Amino acid sequence: MAHIALEEGLPGITGGFAFRPETAKPMRELAEILLRGENSLTSAEREAIAAVVSNGNECRFCQLSHSAAAAEHRGGREADYAWIEAVKANPEAAEVSPKLRALIGIAKKVREGGKKVTAADVAAAREQGATDMEIHDTVLIAAAFSMYNRYVDGLGTFQPEEMAAYKPMGKMMAHEGYVRREPVASSL
Amino acid sequence: MAHIALEEGLPGITGGFAFRPETAKPMRELAEILLRGENSLTSAEREAIAAVVSNGNECRFCQLSHSAAAAEHRGGREADYAWIEAVKANPEAAEVSPKLRALIGIAKKVREGGKKVTAADVAAAREQGATDMEIHDTVLIAAAFSMYNRYVDGLGTFQPEEMAAYKPMGKMMAHEGYVRREPVASSL
Repeated sequence: MAHIALEEGLPGITGGFAFRPETAKPMRELAEILLRGENSLTSAEREAIAAVVSNGNECRFCQLSHSAAAAEHRGGREADYAWIEAVKANPEAAEVSPKLRALIGIAKKVREGGKKVTAADVAAAREQGATDMEIHDTVLIAAAFSMYNRYVDGLGTFQPEEMAAYKPMGKMMAHEGYVRREPVASSL
Repeated sequence: MAHIALEEGLPGITGGFAFRPETAKPMRELAEILLRGENSLTSAEREAIAAVVSNGNECRFCQLSHSAAAAEHRGGREADYAWIEAVKANPEAAEVSPKLRALIGIAKKVREGGKKVTAADVAAAREQGATDMEIHDTVLIAAAFSMYNRYVDGLGTFQPEEMAAYKPMGKMMAHEGYVRREPVASSL
């Protein structure tokens, strides 16, 4: 059971968002810009960074939903779901570009604490072609998921166990995004 | 030196905000709602939670600027600056309400990780009169500063050493807030 009176059955962060729409708005906008906004990193790459950080924080809802989003951005095939599992398990061995591998290294440091990032980590990413904007966004994605993960787990939200529950979420996150559409007035 | 090409001399988070105004906007809005929006917790109490979390994360810019904001919300006297120092040093001994003391306990757990928060922590806060909204906002303030702290340190931003540099910032944060005003066209 959640620590506060969240609406029954709303999974993960959606429970907190429904409880406090005022704070949901900027939190959704930040995710939209970081994960789906125009960027030289693909959305699959950025969702992979989010999934790796959430996996490190052991936040089931965040890591499975963003894993699904990463896979869906790549086409949603079984191989795409296998890809993100491999990235989370071991980015060193997974099929990722040297640039993304270096950025994931920075994201993992940020997850532990901002001061863990060294000039050498940043230089290594730059050597693989990472731009200042890509380094900035990697730091901020990792920092933002340090927030989202704590929000989801700190409220004790309901988090489905099975990956099957996260595939439709991942599709929506990938293809419709994070900013809530206003419900259309039904009959008036 | 910062890890990426931030504008020289901009302290802490303002360097990141100037570099990427798109992400600054929702990050500023979230701080404004959490720390200055209508709330049954005073702004001084909410800034104190932010300062305690930032202190735990050893983010100098965040902990000193939000300490100053907390003190300025109480009047900005020497005693108010002594108060926030006492709260950071030991909330158990500081002059805070039993409710704020319990909420700070929850915030410290969230800083370590969302899963650290127990039903007993939440029950203890509720016994001291904390509402669901106050518990929600405490969790989210602690989670949000887990982001802001990592962003500020992960970019290697410039962070002044002396508290004197933070007093004017604290005044602005307390009395003008976190949402950037558009510059007024000067002569047209």
